[in-house]
Amino acid sequence: MPDNSHPSAQPRRIVYFLSNRTAITAETLGHSLLAQFPDIDFSTTTIPFIDSEDKAQRIVDAINREHADSGIRPIVISTMADEAISSIILKSKALVLDPFDQFLPGLENLLQTTSIHASGQSHRIANQTLYESRIDAIDYSMIHDDGVTTKNYDQAEIIVVGVSRVGKTPTCLYLALQFGLKAANYPITEEDMESEGLPKIVRQYKRKIFGLTTNPKRLAHIRQERRPNSRYASLEQCRYEIKTAEEMFYNHKVPYLNTTTMSIEEIATKIVEVTGLHRISRPQISKMDF
Amino acid sequence: MPDNSHPSAQPRRIVYFLSNRTAITAETLGHSLLAQFPDIDFSTTTIPFIDSEDKAQRIVDAINREHADSGIRPIVISTMADEAISSIILKSKALVLDPFDQFLPGLENLLQTTSIHASGQSHRIANQTLYESRIDAIDYSMIHDDGVTTKNYDQAEIIVVGVSRVGKTPTCLYLALQFGLKAANYPITEEDMESEGLPKIVRQYKRKIFGLTTNPKRLAHIRQERRPNSRYASLEQCRYEIKTAEEMFYNHKVPYLNTTTMSIEEIATKIVEVTGLHRISRPQISKMDF
Repeated sequence: MPDNSHPSAQPRRIVYFLSNRTAITAETLGHSLLAQFPDIDFSTTTIPFIDSEDKAQRIVDAINREHADSGIRPIVISTMADEAISSIILKSKALVLDPFDQFLPGLENLLQTTSIHASGQSHRIANQTLYESRIDAIDYSMIHDDGVTTKNYDQAEIIVVGVSRVGKTPTCLYLALQFGLKAANYPITEEDMESEGLPKIVRQYKRKIFGLTTNPKRLAHIRQERRPNSRYASLEQCRYEIKTAEEMFYNHKVPYLNTTTMSIEEIATKIVEVTGLHRISRPQISKMDF
Repeated sequence: MPDNSHPSAQPRRIVYFLSNRTAITAETLGHSLLAQFPDIDFSTTTIPFIDSEDKAQRIVDAINREHADSGIRPIVISTMADEAISSIILKSKALVLDPFDQFLPGLENLLQTTSIHASGQSHRIANQTLYESRIDAIDYSMIHDDGVTTKNYDQAEIIVVGVSRVGKTPTCLYLALQFGLKAANYPITEEDMESEGLPKIVRQYKRKIFGLTTNPKRLAHIRQERRPNSRYASLEQCRYEIKTAEEMFYNHKVPYLNTTTMSIEEIATKIVEVTGLHRISRPQISKMDF
């Protein structure tokens, strides 16, 4: 007799993200959907570049075998632009969620035209100029990381400031890579903290400065990994630095974010929203006054 | 009388990407869908952090006004996890495509449980350890960019090699930021080209090496932007370098990609697929033998 003492316990669910291109759209959408079921244990597998009917059929066969063996129906999130390949995937015994299958007919109807159903246009180099702007932004952000170079700050679209290990570097790289923004970052040092003002180097670019702060305990934890048992990693030092940095932001009216519970994606998106910067690799973010 | 001489000419279409969190999922999905209609001129606006019914209503009012003024029905791609906010957006006069509205009921039915409909779990810091691995990967890739530091190559998960400006840096940053992989990169210099073998420094890590190559004309164009009219940017020099690098990859059986028409996302995804590396911020990529 089966053990029914934990009726809410769910079996692990197998999930496949399938695509004829990078599978980035399928993964992004899939993770958003699965995150709505935090109590379920999902095991995910990504299979990109499914570019033939033959390959699609082999994958469907494997998914169906998996289903037959485990008795648990798998989940498939599929963004297959090619209709013939898509229809093979849709015939699998998994629950198949396909936003192309779902949404393209409505769009075709509204636009009174047929979609190309060609593959993965969105992550191709659609526009050479935009692509080069993005590469330029990455170059800029690499050179201007952590105050190493402070030349050409006039070209920066944003200068992120904060104490060591608050998240400046990943934030700037994400701003460059994802949004095509030239993002420099500059560390607030002890010397700066002892003075009253903003760090000298960035003072003249005040309207471009954006501050990051975090919870001192979290900062101490992160610093502990880097330099265990140092003064740098002590909770006391972290408390002092965060308090001083936050006062600096406040006194000089520098917009800032507490990043303690935020992901890199959230920090970067919030900065773009607060400052009204343009995302260029993605088109313009709203500056409408909602 | 209206001019009907160009019956296929379409009006510019206004598209909104809406979300109560970062709108990254809405943008990613939206761009994939719109890319299926390359002849249509879309104007896109992203509005993240729509976290109240009040704000949602103001946005719907603005969208409806836009519709009334232009007479052209706007398109909305919305990932609103909160049901109350979502239902306000769904009542707008735009064509609303909402993957949560579309796919969550099927998932709830399969999983026999209700979704939390809480907001944007997927780009939050769901797992502190995974988050820290990703930050570690970024640190590693920054330090090991362009052969600046060659220590700790034993810790690299991949070492990308290629001639100057072939795309090594953005590829490695994407591998680190998106997939949590420790990705070093090492330039192939003229000295290396004159010798027979792989660059000395990377030779002992041969199984981790991955090569990038591109079209010489494209390389010359990119180098021209950096150092106009230099030998470095000449087509002749670019041809020589690419030819030599490709021979090196071929002779030493180093897997490599020609990146000429590939986006950063495609290059990174392809490397992960070819090498069988694990994506860690996203779970494992398939190593099933399809």
